[in-house]
This record gives sequence, C-alpha cells and structure tokens, in this order.
Amino acid sequence: MPQLVVTLDCPDRPGIVHAITGAIVAVGGNITELQQFSSPDSGRFFTRIAVEGAEAEGLERAVREATDGFGARLRVDDAERPVRTLLLASKAGHALNDLLFRWQGGELPIDVARIMANHDVLSPMAAFYGVPFESHAVTPETKADFEAQVRRVVEEEGIELVVLARYMQILSPGLCEFLAWRAINIHHSFLPGFKGANPYRQAHTRGVKLIGATAHFVTSDLDEGPIIEQNVVRVDHTMSVSKLMRKGQAQESQTLAEAVRLFAEHRVLADDDRTVIFR
Amino acid sequence: MPQLVVTLDCPDRPGIVHAITGAIVAVGGNITELQQFSSPDSGRFFTRIAVEGAEAEGLERAVREATDGFGARLRVDDAERPVRTLLLASKAGHALNDLLFRWQGGELPIDVARIMANHDVLSPMAAFYGVPFESHAVTPETKADFEAQVRRVVEEEGIELVVLARYMQILSPGLCEFLAWRAINIHHSFLPGFKGANPYRQAHTRGVKLIGATAHFVTSDLDEGPIIEQNVVRVDHTMSVSKLMRKGQAQESQTLAEAVRLFAEHRVLADDDRTVIFR
Amino acid sequence: MPQLVVTLDCPDRPGIVHAITGAIVAVGGNITELQQFSSPDSGRFFTRIAVEGAEAEGLERAVREATDGFGARLRVDDAERPVRTLLLASKAGHALNDLLFRWQGGELPIDVARIMANHDVLSPMAAFYGVPFESHAVTPETKADFEAQVRRVVEEEGIELVVLARYMQILSPGLCEFLAWRAINIHHSFLPGFKGANPYRQAHTRGVKLIGATAHFVTSDLDEGPIIEQNVVRVDHTMSVSKLMRKGQAQESQTLAEAVRLFAEHRVLADDDRTVIFR
Amino acid sequence: MPQLVVTLDCPDRPGIVHAITGAIVAVGGNITELQQFSSPDSGRFFTRIAVEGAEAEGLERAVREATDGFGARLRVDDAERPVRTLLLASKAGHALNDLLFRWQGGELPIDVARIMANHDVLSPMAAFYGVPFESHAVTPETKADFEAQVRRVVEEEGIELVVLARYMQILSPGLCEFLAWRAINIHHSFLPGFKGANPYRQAHTRGVKLIGATAHFVTSDLDEGPIIEQNVVRVDHTMSVSKLMRKGQAQESQTLAEAVRLFAEHRVLADDDRTVIFR
Repeated sequence: MPQLVVTLDCPDRPGIVHAITGAIVAVGGNITELQQFSSPDSGRFFTRIAVEGAEAEGLERAVREATDGFGARLRVDDAERPVRTLLLASKAGHALNDLLFRWQGGELPIDVARIMANHDVLSPMAAFYGVPFESHAVTPETKADFEAQVRRVVEEEGIELVVLARYMQILSPGLCEFLAWRAINIHHSFLPGFKGANPYRQAHTRGVKLIGATAHFVTSDLDEGPIIEQNVVRVDHTMSVSKLMRKGQAQESQTLAEAVRLFAEHRVLADDDRTVIFR
Repeated sequence: MPQLVVTLDCPDRPGIVHAITGAIVAVGGNITELQQFSSPDSGRFFTRIAVEGAEAEGLERAVREATDGFGARLRVDDAERPVRTLLLASKAGHALNDLLFRWQGGELPIDVARIMANHDVLSPMAAFYGVPFESHAVTPETKADFEAQVRRVVEEEGIELVVLARYMQILSPGLCEFLAWRAINIHHSFLPGFKGANPYRQAHTRGVKLIGATAHFVTSDLDEGPIIEQNVVRVDHTMSVSKLMRKGQAQESQTLAEAVRLFAEHRVLADDDRTVIFR
Repeated sequence: MPQLVVTLDCPDRPGIVHAITGAIVAVGGNITELQQFSSPDSGRFFTRIAVEGAEAEGLERAVREATDGFGARLRVDDAERPVRTLLLASKAGHALNDLLFRWQGGELPIDVARIMANHDVLSPMAAFYGVPFESHAVTPETKADFEAQVRRVVEEEGIELVVLARYMQILSPGLCEFLAWRAINIHHSFLPGFKGANPYRQAHTRGVKLIGATAHFVTSDLDEGPIIEQNVVRVDHTMSVSKLMRKGQAQESQTLAEAVRLFAEHRVLADDDRTVIFR
Repeated sequence: MPQLVVTLDCPDRPGIVHAITGAIVAVGGNITELQQFSSPDSGRFFTRIAVEGAEAEGLERAVREATDGFGARLRVDDAERPVRTLLLASKAGHALNDLLFRWQGGELPIDVARIMANHDVLSPMAAFYGVPFESHAVTPETKADFEAQVRRVVEEEGIELVVLARYMQILSPGLCEFLAWRAINIHHSFLPGFKGANPYRQAHTRGVKLIGATAHFVTSDLDEGPIIEQNVVRVDHTMSVSKLMRKGQAQESQTLAEAVRLFAEHRVLADDDRTVIFR
C-alpha cells in the first residue's frame, strides 16, 4: 500500500476535520501526519494529511463524498511518485546544478523530464546528469515559438512543475496564466528592496548588511508572485558587487531547491495570493 | 466561549484523530489548529488541537469518553489562562530580566507568582516588575530546607511551571522527580561539547566558531534532560573568555524565553525522553 | 595608561599605514588591533587602530603630524570612556528596556545622560534604571520647541550619540542635519520592501517568510540613511499581524543594541553614504 | 604586478606593524587590506596584508629583512595563483560535488590536481569535472601503501592542501604529522556532543534541535584538530535519522567549502592549537 498525501482546501466550517478523518478511517487508512490551518483572512480551511494503509482511488472517492457540498479543492497524491518536472535555464549553472545534484541524490522527489534553455552552454551539465536538453534562441521574434514549445512539452510530457532555474526571460502573460501555481521562479532579494536595473550595485551603494533570495510562483506581475521560501546571508562593506552576486547566487540555489522540495512533497497550498506551507 | 487547547497522547492506532475530532464536533467545537505526530520510536500518537466555541468541562468529558480504552493522557487548557510560574534565580540577572520584560509585555502567557533566589541582589529587579521575591542562603546545611520551601510554594500556590533562570544550584534527585516535566533549565552549549569546569575557557582554547544555549527539562541527570529549544551564535578568535560568556548569555536569555513560551502555550509533549514540539 | 582607539579616514595613497604606525611607535604605543579598508568606490582609506601604552594627547598630535597633508579626518578616543548618549522614546518600551538593561549590565560602553519622550508611559522604566526622564507632548505646534530642547540637551550635556529607541516622530531636516552621523534610528524591514502605511499588514498579505530590522543613521531622507546593522527572523503563514509585529520588535531591540555597541566602540566610519564597519 | 598576500606571525612586540609596513612601502607596495591580531593566550602577533604594486620576491626579501630577529614565520603568496589541492574521497559524493562545482565556477582559488578515493563510485563525477581520479582499495593490509602514494602525490605534484571530502578512513599518525596544518577534514557536530557510534541516531534519541558540521585541520587526535569553520541547521522531532543525516550533509558540504576558501585565500593562521581566521 502506498503512502498517500491528501491536500484539501475549502471554506472553513465546523466538522471538516471530523468528516475527512471519518472518510479516511472508513477506507482503512491510518493518518501518519496531519496539518491544518484556518485562514482568518480568506475564511478558508486548509489541510495536508499523510495516510497509510489505504488505496488512492478509494481514498479520494471517500474524501470527495464526505466533503460533498463543502466546495473543496481536493488532491490525493502518491508520496512516492516523483513530480514530473521541466527545468528552464539560461547560461548560469549554479541553481541548475544544485537542483540536479540534489535530485540525483534522492533529496528531491521530482522526475526531471527535460531541460529547455535559451543558450546551449549548460548542455554538458545536462549530459552528465543524463537529462534531455534542448536549447532555442529566444528573441522577440522567436519567443512566442519557444513558449509554444514549452506548452507542448508540459502537455505531452505530463509536466506538473516548471522550475525557472535562473531562466532570465520574462514569460508572457498567457504562459504565466497557463502555468499558474505550478511554475516556480527564484530571484535575489534585499532589505530594503531596490527598483530598477542592477540591484546588486544598488545594494552595494546602499551598504546593505544582508542579501537574500526569494522563491515564488510565477505570475504576470514580475517577481511579485506568492512567496514560497526566503533566505538571507550576511554581507559587509568589503565585498565587491561581484562578491555580493556570488553570495546571492548561493542563496538562490539553496532557496530554490527548498521551494521545489516543498512543492514536490505537496506542502504548498494557495490561500488567495499567499501560500500556506505545511512543513 | 474561551479558546481551548487539547493535548493528548496515547499508543498509536487507526481512527484516533477521527474519534477525537468527532467528540469536538459533538460538543459544538470548531477546530482552529491541529497538529499531530506519530512517533516511530515509541509507537505513540501525539496531538495538540486548538478549539473554539466549546466549553472546557464538556469538551474534556467528550474527548475522554471518545478515547476511552486508548490509554490516553489528556489535558484541556484554557489558552487565555496564564500558567502559574515560579522563577528560581541566583545572582545573574540577564535571563530573569528577559523573562520578566517579555511577561510584562504580554509575550509570555505566564503568571509569575514568585521569585525565589539564593542571593538577594536581584531583589530590586523583582520590585520593579512587582513580583514577590524571597532569598534564602543555600548551603549544604540549608539546601533541604530551601527545597522544602520550593515544594511548599509549588503546592500552595498552584505552580505549574518552575523556571531555573540561571539558578546555579543542582536540585536534589527528589525535587527533580517532584518537578518532572514541569521545570525548565537553561545552560550554555558548545560544538563539540566540553566536560568539566569552565567550558567557556575550554571553548576559547579550542577556538570554537559557534556557541549556544540549550533549554531543557530538569532531570536528576544534570544538563541531560529532554531538550526543548537550542540556539547558537557565531564567535571568533578575537573574543576573550568574558566576551564569549556575554554572547552566550544573550543566547541563554532568548532560548529560555522561547522554551517558556512553548511550554506555556502547551506546545511541548513528552515522548519517552524526547520532546515533541508543536510550534 | 588607557586603551585608545584611533579612527582615521582620508584619500587613499601609498604609505598611509606606515606613516600612522610610525607615529604610534614613536610615542611608545603598542598596536593591539588594526583594521583598514580601501574603498574602491570613494577612493578613500579607512582605519581603526587600538593602541596601548600611549597617552591620548601625545598620540593624537603625533598621528596628526604624520598625516599632515593627507586631508585626514582623525579621532583618538579613550576606549574606557563611555559615549554620552541621549535616548529618544515614545510609548513602546521594548527597544528602550533592551538598551537600558544591556547598558546596566556593562555590555554597552555608553553613558545614558537622559531619556526624552513624547509620552510619559515609560517614566517608571527610566526610574528603575535611574535615568533622568522628561516627557513633552509633541504636536505640530510644539514640535519645534521639543527639537530645540533636544539640541540644547545635546549641546549642554556633551551628547555624542542620540538613539531613537522607537521614537515615532519624524525629525525636521534641520535637526537631522545637526545630528548627522550621530543619531541612530531603528525600523522594521522586509524582503521585499513595502511602501506606505502598515507594512506588517502588507507583509502578512504578501505571505513573506522573513521579517527583519534595520538600524541606520538618521537623515532627512526618511528610513534611507546609511545602514549600520540588519537582522531577520523566520515567520510563517500562521502568524497574525500582531505576532509578526512582536517578532519584528524583538529583532528591532537586538539590532538597535548591536548598532549602538558598534558606534560606541568607534567601529562605524562614513564612506560617502555607506558605512564601513570594523567589527 | 600581481596582488600579493603577506601572512606573518611572531612573538608580539611594539613596532611590528610599523616595521612591516615600512618594508612594504620601501618596495613600492600599496596595502589594500590589513588585518592583525595579538593573541593574549600565546603572546603571538598575527597579520595578513594584501599588497598591490610590488613584486613578490622583492617584497618577501624586504619584509624578511625588516623582521629579522623577530622570529617570524613569513609567507608571501600570489593571490591569483590557485592553491594546489588533492582531494580524498570515499563513496559519498555530496561534499566532493559541492567543492568541484564551486571550484569550476571560480569560487574557490584552488587547482584540483587529483582525486584519490578508496572506492571507484565517484569516478564519473571526476570525469565530468575533468579531474584525474584514482581509486585504491584501503584495507588494513593496503593502508600503508595507499598512504605512501598520498605522500608521493603530495610531494611530486606540489600539493599544498589535502581535503578529506568525506574520506572515511582514519589517517595514520605519521601521515597526520606529515600533513600538519595543510589537511582539512569535515565532520558532523552536535550540541551536546555524542561519543561513540551512530551519532545521528543518538541525536535523534536525544531530540536535539540543532545539528551542524565542523571543518578542522587533521591531527592524530581524531576529530579534535584546530577548528576552521562551523555551521548548524535547525531540526525537529518529526525528522527521521536519515533526514537528520541529509540535513547534516548539506551543512558538511557548505562548511567544508568555506573552510577550503579561507585556507586558499591564506586567511587561516595557527595560534598554538587554535586558528586565527582573517575573514
């Protein structure tokens, strides 16, 4: 019997947990992990439940019946089944190598179907890890084409997660919409934030003492999607702009990998424009 | 209607969550927070459930009936009712002031009934915060006496938590037993650990780069009780032994306060000799 | 003989360190700590040197002569002499109590001359720590008056450092100018930053995973002065706006105290609009 | 003209910095970075000085003459010349991949001459990064042989640094002596420390809240050599022993890479059995 993960959200009301757990018990399931959250902001209820001893289809049917009329969004996932993942990359290899190495080492429950890039410099890295790689020049003229191919790969290969591992192109609003809540981006972050070009230079000029990274879902509002994970690292006045960038990149790699893990373990739910993270 | 906190642990078995949540629903309760953990080590099940809309006595009776035969340890606490607390102190004021200031500011849901110390230097601090203070010399001859008074205060004042805020005396095995799982101590910690006297000097000699603090329950096995919280801070070769101590003390204050908060919010459960912490 | 601290900055050029250290040796001084930094941005050289075995006046004269023509800004301070400090406060006590407790415990080499506040609620805290306290209502009508009194206290009491310990009023440009590089403010910080009112609510809405605090010098450009110190703490989706605020306040207290310590130990120098921090 | 790094230590006495900086000025050098430390424990003086505009041989001669009679240990290194490095590995690839990826990305100023392992499973990783790899079975019978080959490689290939990237064998006292202060090991660390086998299991049993890693120089006193770098990460009661190990391994990789960087930038000096780290 597989280890299953039930994730569900619906408008909050008394008796939800009892109804769901009753359905789980009825199909012979044993709950090994249960987290829940009632959002005072949206009035919604969220839960993630790990279940042993039940069979997926029966469990899903039972929970669906028990929550009939609740207006619930429900998923039942096999925790052992890796999440089909497409990686988008450009020239910078730090975030990509970190993901691939962790994936190869069994740290990330994903199945990397393919890497698509707008440059070919990371091709040898893909070859080393044994992942299909394709590169396409992306120009204003060819961007629509490239995005059409991304859509096709997502559909044909059953992609559940798209990771922008320092893919430096802005996705079109249409593609953002198509990938809503299933595409993760990583970018640098600062206290305070900086608008405009070359933020590391601005951070240097301003003399910040911390720099960091934010992993978030992709939306058409650039770099403003729902936040999944953030980290910072300490910096000082002696560090050049390029040193700040290297420190920032290490944060990016680590933060992106953590966000991917959270997603692939079905620990990230959507509460309007915020995430609920069941660690 | 109060906000209630149900904490329960028992041997793990299917259907527990369903049984408990059913009892909560039956008395009109709405679950606002639920955490659970099944310990693979002890085979025990642990849960902490925050409930609104029910009345304490009825809720406790209902859950008790529903888990009859499970061999459960059960508590139902009013989340608004501060935990009756006795502070033991000596001469060092850092941890004590930190606790009192946070308590006064409403950060710690405790009710400080009294401070008992083996020196009187902290008397003005107690006066400022308006807490009854008594000091007793503690010598080999008077130690049994002092401990008897601690027991009496615990019993007469309904003390639920004893905090050793840098109280530098070893408690007798009998008092440790009496206070099992309801007395919290704080001590410095190092990687690697050091045995014997003057650990800060040893840490300095060894050139450690991190020093920390551990808050744990008091047991007769000195400084080896179940761990509640730990923190570290970075240090370097320029720091004198006294500087290391100051850095360590700041960690002690913060770590102890966090452990007290976790306890007072009923977030700490006992799994054999380990803690289960529902943050 | 006192422990002295030489701080100096000037346009960078070969031979500076040699010239300064020669002057120190010539008056019998022994260097126990030396840090330097050449700023590629401003082309300036910065140093902080701790010296034993010399006398302050002679040392200053010798260094001044040796760097004659370098266009240097020079200070020689007695490391044991606490820095005369004025604290500005309002109603919130967390940052003030933290400063006063650390000061009393000998952690901060400052001499708290007075607390000036625009409310009187913190008067008992001042009394407990034995610090003169005065409160003045600050309204659009009385603000100029209050600021005039601050100036007078600074001048008459030989104040070297003004700390805004959650003093919630904006200082006039004139007062900012008067206190340039000797007034420290603390405020909350977020990744990303938020403009406008109620940033904790915005941070909550956005679902940030880290919140922090920034200590900086006061300038007329609100909350944009040179940064001295920053810290962050992890938060999650379960935390209410008020919980975020409490977490933020703990960061504020700690970050402000660290900034004050760095200043009072003469470890903070000005490189155009950035700080050079010699830890 | 290269960027040079002068590192020097000698018994502390007045005038050292002046003498050294005078020598640097005399050969036309400009100091861009200078750090120093006087150890109250050993009575020794330590400095690291970055110099531009001078030529290595002339600089070394001038400093040597200027410190003649001081009993100084002196090195002058070209900051651009990567440190010749030999990596020892076994089966676990996490620390090795991390080092190789950072090295390839230009983060670590080392020149990886060779990987020697007691298993061949990491051979493809070495091939991907283009580093010569050799594996030798290490048994009680062949250990002396293997160590003799390590010595030969160190001598013939001009190795300056040996990194034990999870090389799980204990080196003989003779080899430890031969590699004193130029071999770095990484191991897991805990608060408190645990003696004996399977420390992750002990940490799990004890319910620790932090686990970490320590990078240190290899000595014949197993895992007790001078500490270069330490880090910790937060863990909790839900984590299995294998999860704790994965978290620990990420700390090991990062901590080892940082220690290697510090060494290769000539930032690590020896103060009896402690390190002085000029960051």
